[in-house]
Amino acid sequence: MLGQPVTARACANIALVKYWGKRDSKLNLPATGSLSLTLAALATQTTVMFDTALVQDELELDGFSARFADTARASTFLDLVRDAAGITTRARVTSKNEFPTASGLASSASGYAALALAASKAAGLSLSERELSILARRGSGSAARSIYGGFVRMNAGDTTESAYAEPLTSPLVDRVRMVIAIVGGGTPKQHGSRDAMEHTAATSPYYQPWVELVPKDLEVATAALAKGDLEALGVVAEANALAMHASAMAARPGVIYWQPATIAVHNEVRGLRACGIAAWATMDAGPHVKILTTAEDAPTIAMRVKDIDGVTAVTISASGPPATIAT
Amino acid sequence: MLGQPVTARACANIALVKYWGKRDSKLNLPATGSLSLTLAALATQTTVMFDTALVQDELELDGFSARFADTARASTFLDLVRDAAGITTRARVTSKNEFPTASGLASSASGYAALALAASKAAGLSLSERELSILARRGSGSAARSIYGGFVRMNAGDTTESAYAEPLTSPLVDRVRMVIAIVGGGTPKQHGSRDAMEHTAATSPYYQPWVELVPKDLEVATAALAKGDLEALGVVAEANALAMHASAMAARPGVIYWQPATIAVHNEVRGLRACGIAAWATMDAGPHVKILTTAEDAPTIAMRVKDIDGVTAVTISASGPPATIAT
Repeated sequence: MLGQPVTARACANIALVKYWGKRDSKLNLPATGSLSLTLAALATQTTVMFDTALVQDELELDGFSARFADTARASTFLDLVRDAAGITTRARVTSKNEFPTASGLASSASGYAALALAASKAAGLSLSERELSILARRGSGSAARSIYGGFVRMNAGDTTESAYAEPLTSPLVDRVRMVIAIVGGGTPKQHGSRDAMEHTAATSPYYQPWVELVPKDLEVATAALAKGDLEALGVVAEANALAMHASAMAARPGVIYWQPATIAVHNEVRGLRACGIAAWATMDAGPHVKILTTAEDAPTIAMRVKDIDGVTAVTISASGPPATIAT
Repeated sequence: MLGQPVTARACANIALVKYWGKRDSKLNLPATGSLSLTLAALATQTTVMFDTALVQDELELDGFSARFADTARASTFLDLVRDAAGITTRARVTSKNEFPTASGLASSASGYAALALAASKAAGLSLSERELSILARRGSGSAARSIYGGFVRMNAGDTTESAYAEPLTSPLVDRVRMVIAIVGGGTPKQHGSRDAMEHTAATSPYYQPWVELVPKDLEVATAALAKGDLEALGVVAEANALAMHASAMAARPGVIYWQPATIAVHNEVRGLRACGIAAWATMDAGPHVKILTTAEDAPTIAMRVKDIDGVTAVTISASGPPATIAT
């Protein structure tokens, strides 16, 4: 017997205060809070249909059957939904990233946010946004933030119930843009972010100071958002990203995500800033550079970084909406 | 009246466990110990002559009158020598780097080691190597190590008298080579190393863990030298350099010395190592990469890195001799 197919749409997000390290890998509890901007340009659309004829979950990603590891991870996640709904039916999941695939941008945030919403609805559950955020977190830590649009703060929480994201209102939400410079598109990264996070936590002399630093950066970023102070937000975002990469670089052996173009873009951002352009760089567990800026300055930045050797694509994104059921 | 001119020759050194941070800037006392390799290819020759006809010290560097700041720094240093010798006579100092100038390699180590030896001798002093090392440190922290050849360990010391360098014997001394890849030669660096050190100590959340890390790395490196274990030495040297740069990168604002080619050379080193080549990278407060290797593997490495975009010169150096009076 077929259940009703349910389609949800969610956008990826870029952290301005990074999520880097877990307290509990089974429950996917983060070591610290984090803060992000949901991006309109990076959306995932996912359809879930429970079907009693299936003997196992099936996952299709961007038109192809998913790899075993990805299907197994989704299946483990669907078990959480089935447990909550009191069902055992297997599901067919079809997910499509509405942005260039293999671009090196983590789509697990948008993917697991969309999956949490579509699967819970298809299973007959009616979860609050907070419950969805907690559920999405179990699939991917950063997915907890993609349930909401705009600026979002993730709470580290004391328990699985208190580790959820919340939206932050800010006068900056309509003004900001993110320029995403893809570096060496297509090259798979050498260190998976989960492994690198664990390796950093286990071996870097700078991991504990990182964990102690994040709550301070979170307060500064939250205050900057409340005041609408883009420069204060940009300064703390760039510094926080460098601190995250520095913690990984000092792991043993060191984890270096940067490519030559990562440095070139970063230097360009500093140069543009010296010329009065609003531009602050952030980088995740990969070589790409995301530049926080304004609607006015975004085109100039995009034009300047697209010609840098090793930059293979540039996208400008506005702030994105919350995860929604597609009608 | 003219004193006798005295000429000394000293070689620069590259730290394998870095000197990064001071306890006392007037006495130039380092925050931690350090460990280096003196390099034959990077020598400075300096002649000092005390002359009662002079009303002020005169400094000539590589054939040109030195800038005021450099002359003033040398003059302050010569005051230490005059105080020890009980004289007030001004001196004429002529110093020449026997390696490409403006190459971006700190020549203050070889420069102040040669100056300490030549000036003390010209002033009639006969200092022990240890006394010379303490004196050279007052001119430049890393110069204390250039009094000795081969592998040298600097002691952090409790007082100015105990902050001196000492040579370490190792079966590796004849086997090792350093391949020096100059990145973007000629571009002056944006952050002087003294300023960046102080900025890092004052603002980086990773500075205190750095200071706590160095003594452990020093013990590992010292043990590796005693055993002749090049791999163990290389691994700790590369990790220590990354930790130093990571501490600077996490300063606020972050100090990034790397250029695109710095990353490209570093990636090449990792690639060569994966192919069985002995190669470990270290970087100082600038964009250049120095690669610890063996006599056999040095030519392969030099050949591979010289074609990297942004690498403007490559030099191979063997271990160098101690500072000596030229006859």
